[in-house]
Order: sequence, then C-alpha cells, then structure tokens
Amino acid sequence: MTESPLTITTVGLDADDTLWHNETIFRLTQDRFVQLLGDHADGPAVRERLAAVERRNLRLYGYGVKGFTLSMIETAMELADGADITALVREILAAGREMLSHPVEPLPGVEEALAALAERYRLVLITKGDLLHQENKLAASGLGELFAAVEIVSEKDRGTYERVFARHGTGAGEAAMAGNSMRSDILPAIEAGAFAAYIPYVVTWAHELADAPADNPRYAELASIAELPAWLEALEREAA
Amino acid sequence: MTESPLTITTVGLDADDTLWHNETIFRLTQDRFVQLLGDHADGPAVRERLAAVERRNLRLYGYGVKGFTLSMIETAMELADGADITALVREILAAGREMLSHPVEPLPGVEEALAALAERYRLVLITKGDLLHQENKLAASGLGELFAAVEIVSEKDRGTYERVFARHGTGAGEAAMAGNSMRSDILPAIEAGAFAAYIPYVVTWAHELADAPADNPRYAELASIAELPAWLEALEREAA
Repeated sequence: MTESPLTITTVGLDADDTLWHNETIFRLTQDRFVQLLGDHADGPAVRERLAAVERRNLRLYGYGVKGFTLSMIETAMELADGADITALVREILAAGREMLSHPVEPLPGVEEALAALAERYRLVLITKGDLLHQENKLAASGLGELFAAVEIVSEKDRGTYERVFARHGTGAGEAAMAGNSMRSDILPAIEAGAFAAYIPYVVTWAHELADAPADNPRYAELASIAELPAWLEALEREAA
Repeated sequence: MTESPLTITTVGLDADDTLWHNETIFRLTQDRFVQLLGDHADGPAVRERLAAVERRNLRLYGYGVKGFTLSMIETAMELADGADITALVREILAAGREMLSHPVEPLPGVEEALAALAERYRLVLITKGDLLHQENKLAASGLGELFAAVEIVSEKDRGTYERVFARHGTGAGEAAMAGNSMRSDILPAIEAGAFAAYIPYVVTWAHELADAPADNPRYAELASIAELPAWLEALEREAA
C-alpha cells in the first residue's frame, strides 16, 4: 500500500436536529399527546405504549410525521379501550398537520458553517423521513442552494453511505459525514470508510442511541457544527 | 444542426399501475370506506368528500398510502359530524396497514419486457409515493435486480426527468419514459426532450388524467408493456 495524501471531497450532512430542530417538536407533540390521554393513562404509560406502537409500525410506516400521526391514533385507540376517541383523533390530526407545517429555522451556526464548507467541499444532505416533508423543510430553511445533492433515504446503513458517496463524490474514503445520531449518522458512515463528526443535539430519540466508536482517528465529537470546518481542515493538514 | 443517429441509452419506468397494481387497491379500499360510512352519507357524497380532503392535503401529505389513510380518517370525522367514529378509525387504520402490506405481483408481461429492455438499456424506476413503501414493493416484486437505479420523487415534472436522466443516463434526449399517467409520466417527459410511451392501466386516478400530446413523433400509446421493446427498437432503426 502506498501512502497518498488525504483528500476530503464530499461532506454529508444529516438534516433533522443537525441543521434544524426536529426531536424537540416530536417531544412537544408527545407532551400534548400525554395530556390528551390523561383520562385514560398516566404519562409514563402513554409514552411507553406510544413507543411500543411506533416500534411495531416502523417496518410498515418508516420514519416521519405521517407514520407518527398514525401511531398516535393507534395508541389512543388502544389506551381508550373502546371509549369514544373522536375528539382525540381530531386533536391528533391537527397536531400532525402542525408538525408538517412547522416553520423551519436553521440551528445556531448552521448557515455560517455550511457556507464555509460549501466553498471547499461538495455538500450532500442525507436524511430519513417523509420525502415531501424533508423537501419542504429544506426549501423553507433557505439552505437548499448550498447543497450539491439531496438524498432522502429509508434507512441509513453502511450500504447507504457507500452508495451516496460513490454517486455524489469520490467514494466514502474521501468523504465525511456529520450528524446527531450515533446509530444512523456516525457508526455506519465509519463502517463505510468515511470520516464522521458526531454533533449531539439537546435530546435524542431513544431509537438513535448507540455507543461511540472506540478510539478511531476518523471520528470526532464536536460541540457544535461551527467546529466542523476546522476539524476537516485539520484532518487534511495533519495528513499532508 | 447536423443529423446524428438516434440513440436511446436509458429507459425510465413508472411503478404503480405500470409494473404492478396500485389504483385498483386504492379503489377497493375506497369501496370499503364507502360501505363503512354508509350510516353517514351515500356513496357519491363519501367519494366526493374524500377526494376534496385528499386534494386539500396533497401539499402537506404528498402521495402514498399513509397520507391517504390520514385523509380517510379526516373524511370520516367530517361526515360523522360529531358522532363516535372510534370503530371507523379502527377499520380505516386496518385498511391502511393492509394496503401497505399488500402482496406485489408484476402485471402480465412485465417481467419478460423488463428482461428484454435490461439487455439493451439502462433501466431507471421513477415513482412517486411513500419512500419506504415503494422500496418495499420493489423488493417484493422481485424486479429490483433489473434496475440500474431507483428514483422515488415527490413530484414528476419536466425538471424531475431532466435531472434523473442526466444523473443516470446520457440526458433526456437519449431516454424514453413509460408509464400509465399522461399527466406525470408522459407530458413532462416529452417536455424534457425524452421519448414517452403511454401504457394505460384499467383505471386512472382523476388527478393523473390529461390529454395526449398532439401528433408527436416522440410519443406512442401502447396496449401493453410487452410492446415497449419493439417500439424502442423501431425508433432506433427508423432513425439509423
């Protein structure tokens, strides 16, 4: 094997909770759901049942607000146990619509970081969720112009990163991925051979939790996306 | 302008109602929905209200079964006008789940036609709908191996075809699109500069209806996908 200078050509970025708030909106809706179900079960029981229904439906519904709305209705049905849920369903449908039309504002530092990265790298948005909703959020964020490509995928695994970085860049070996999910953004990107920067969000969906990779030079945890351009430059400088 | 021999390198194929049944399954579910709502409104009124709710929600929900399920629940809510819809919601959720897990069987002639096309052209699946559901259907159909690429898009317009045929082929000018929707598969593909073969399905969603392009040598209506390989070969032969 010959040594060759390290090049990074492509940077993949997660969307929800990396570029804009998402989990917070899910949590607020869940809190509202817990209140709505107050006559039928206590808070922990409602949350537990909803999580179980979501897990059960993930294979059919995938990620995103529409499946989440359907799972809330199903959970209400189960917890109400035959009681009239007409008023609840009305509230849940409204909550789902609000989530889908929620204003999108980039997280602090995102615009500046992306502008700096776009000068040097090909930027690719890589996200799960409802196709139309993710496209709408990107449009509403005003960040669309900074991305060379957008990939909305049903699952983020090693094969996803290999395929996306081959299609839009020069392969995973010359790419870096940044996101807030250890399970979806970091571990499979590293498996694919990419660099990966973990940028934790204030809350994480339990489904996305996992241990950090042990002592890996291609991995870093950053306090903010503002640190991403400097981390990538340092990687290239050290290797030169 | 110099004359150059015509080449077709890439063939785009619609999925629902071109490769496998879809609208029929929606229609059967609608019939069941009409029966369920029988106490609240007559058939035409139920269908009309459901169509209106779907149109209203299209911008937020996009295409696919999950949005359709949510629209059925909303329609039931409106038509029941305050009456208890708990039992209805249970039935509607079950109907949605059945649609999502419905077995997928290629339409007659599809496997043979795709096998013949794949020997000569790069095949790209181009479809709207729920991301995960479309991926699941393609996997269940057993046709996945024949496609060089899969593009699940939120809207099929001229720009979509320009982008997809540039990315996966040699541009729309050397591509052909085949599908059952005049509005989504044919007219925008022709606008983009591609060839287009309209292969009508037994029923068409009203939203997808449009007039055929007038007297266009890049357009044909075929009785079956079985005629597609011969049509493309004839185009290339005539131009040679």
